[in-house]
Amino acid sequence: MLDSLRTKQPIVHCITNHVVSNFLANGLLALGASPIMGEAHEEVEELASLADALSLNIGTLDKQSLQSMLLAGKTANSKGIPVVLDPVGAGATSFRLAATHQLLDDVDITVLRCNVGELAAIAGVEWQAKGVDAGEGNVNVVELAKQTALKYQFIVAVTGETDVVTDGEKTVEIPYGSPLMSSVTGMGCLLSSVVASFLAVSPANDLVAVSRALHYYAICGERAAQLLKGPGTFQFAFLDELAKPDNLNAGERIRVEDGVLWK
Amino acid sequence: MLDSLRTKQPIVHCITNHVVSNFLANGLLALGASPIMGEAHEEVEELASLADALSLNIGTLDKQSLQSMLLAGKTANSKGIPVVLDPVGAGATSFRLAATHQLLDDVDITVLRCNVGELAAIAGVEWQAKGVDAGEGNVNVVELAKQTALKYQFIVAVTGETDVVTDGEKTVEIPYGSPLMSSVTGMGCLLSSVVASFLAVSPANDLVAVSRALHYYAICGERAAQLLKGPGTFQFAFLDELAKPDNLNAGERIRVEDGVLWK
Amino acid sequence: MLDSLRTKQPIVHCITNHVVSNFLANGLLALGASPIMGEAHEEVEELASLADALSLNIGTLDKQSLQSMLLAGKTANSKGIPVVLDPVGAGATSFRLAATHQLLDDVDITVLRCNVGELAAIAGVEWQAKGVDAGEGNVNVVELAKQTALKYQFIVAVTGETDVVTDGEKTVEIPYGSPLMSSVTGMGCLLSSVVASFLAVSPANDLVAVSRALHYYAICGERAAQLLKGPGTFQFAFLDELAKPDNLNAGERIRVEDGVLWK
Repeated sequence: MLDSLRTKQPIVHCITNHVVSNFLANGLLALGASPIMGEAHEEVEELASLADALSLNIGTLDKQSLQSMLLAGKTANSKGIPVVLDPVGAGATSFRLAATHQLLDDVDITVLRCNVGELAAIAGVEWQAKGVDAGEGNVNVVELAKQTALKYQFIVAVTGETDVVTDGEKTVEIPYGSPLMSSVTGMGCLLSSVVASFLAVSPANDLVAVSRALHYYAICGERAAQLLKGPGTFQFAFLDELAKPDNLNAGERIRVEDGVLWK
Repeated sequence: MLDSLRTKQPIVHCITNHVVSNFLANGLLALGASPIMGEAHEEVEELASLADALSLNIGTLDKQSLQSMLLAGKTANSKGIPVVLDPVGAGATSFRLAATHQLLDDVDITVLRCNVGELAAIAGVEWQAKGVDAGEGNVNVVELAKQTALKYQFIVAVTGETDVVTDGEKTVEIPYGSPLMSSVTGMGCLLSSVVASFLAVSPANDLVAVSRALHYYAICGERAAQLLKGPGTFQFAFLDELAKPDNLNAGERIRVEDGVLWK
Repeated sequence: MLDSLRTKQPIVHCITNHVVSNFLANGLLALGASPIMGEAHEEVEELASLADALSLNIGTLDKQSLQSMLLAGKTANSKGIPVVLDPVGAGATSFRLAATHQLLDDVDITVLRCNVGELAAIAGVEWQAKGVDAGEGNVNVVELAKQTALKYQFIVAVTGETDVVTDGEKTVEIPYGSPLMSSVTGMGCLLSSVVASFLAVSPANDLVAVSRALHYYAICGERAAQLLKGPGTFQFAFLDELAKPDNLNAGERIRVEDGVLWK
């Protein structure tokens, strides 16, 4: 799958927040994809129509960029390309939560990629988020992810110490990664666009594509963490790992709850 | 103080310029704080009400973001959390100078963190700034900082070869740091938000908190400079240093003009 | 030329896209120039009037920033400072192409710095671009660059495996650099602002200044690539190289088609 990604170099249209746009563009280039980032209303539909996948992120959303996302989302839907939504801090403000629900209602989303606090906010479950970070609470993440996946008929990928990917039927758990990954801004945002890149080259089985993306990402994180000394240098060692030829097959360690997805 | 910062992980709401937003978010994460960055008028007050400190930076100000800062500043004031203002390039254009004065008039600022050129512009003293850099001139920095601190009843922290922190009565000078710090964009901007982070966990004595923040920052800069070869790699070695457990006590070298602040 | 750049530290006003603004500011600081980045309509003319060169980049253009560029461009023209245009993805959308033509018509551009896909779009020649990347096609790059330079009476600098710089009469080819340079976002954008920095200290002979800028940049890329392991760490090793004292004279390897430009 990584091979076909690097051969096809899919164009991933990202409408994202200005805090992470540089890291995200460099991450996609390292992976082998081709990012495009524009969101002006004058061109956002034309950009989406050039793309192989669309990645939406509400990290520094305003009324203008919400409109850009709706326009691009509708173009992506009519073209039939995958759409990934990253509802950054969905529970932090009423504006973000309303915008997230509008995107879920008006755009056909392929994958919701979030942390557990954002998932709880979307599901209307009680949760103590901390700003835009995951925060703390007491929910059964797997059950909540499954319910949400079934309700919206899409794949939910919740990242944390153990990542959970589910379409409501089958569920994959990925227990890898490094604590350093949460000390770099935009690691979740970039992951969402990496998921979009994997989807762009694997229309057949979205759950496998999403799980492979998270698996690859977590292994790159583990490897980068072995090499280095702190969160500053870690982020660029991580980009180096994303660019390597073979991290996807780094370990045959994936845990699958409801059956073998790949070996 | 660094211990309590890392235990509490204060939420610092930053309304800042797009050139440095990524560096600033990563710097706060490395330090141990939790940055949030949104500024849409629809949510800026709600974000500020979640925060433990507010950090304002006018580096790429426009009418919209000035309004965001005023809204967030008033929320911060009514909540009683500290507010740090970084008046980037205050003397460069009449728009920036007017906006700075509006923020000083309408928001109760806790700390003004600036370079000497910006201080001179705010004080109305003649000075030859160079774009948004400090530039050259002939003023007594300590006296000007004291006068400005007394006039506005806040703390002034002026950085340069020797940093000066004063509340108009007591003054601390911090002669550390590295010339490499001025070859990375956003080093001053990040410092302002580091000051906000320290203030968030030390309501008792603001002058000590600010001085400790600048001291820690300068020592991290010295250490990062020892390791590396140029301004590109320096900025990430610096983030690594910010994340280390003990740089705050690296040296008992602080100079205090009007008395011992800590040992 | 690099010596005088580092002595004068020219102010380069950059109106650029938010994806690369941090990398671009750090690149100019590493080189020895002084970047300023504001674009609010309230101050953009005042900022341009402080500058020694202007660098325009349409990577995340919208109606507002196009207006900023036109205002700054006219100020730069009346002040007589050089203006570099980087028409990122000019052929990707009709909005970008129209905006590029408006800038070419309304502002007196000194250098057009682009890739071959963007050049083809501007010249109206058939070309298969890939998003905002160069893409593929079959044109004689040197001839197309010469024609465009003659039509608009400016210098064209087209980068690729071999860079081409021409004023329509004399042409310089620069066959250096590293493939890693195309795996980092903003490498072309930063180059455009490096060109503006070189022009700011060499009014006499623009073709030489532009060629030296591209030569220096390519040699820094080659050297950074020797040291490192991937696209993440490469970008900061590259900034380290930009800051070194003597890469400009690294090799007497320049190829000049129509005569010796320097030795």
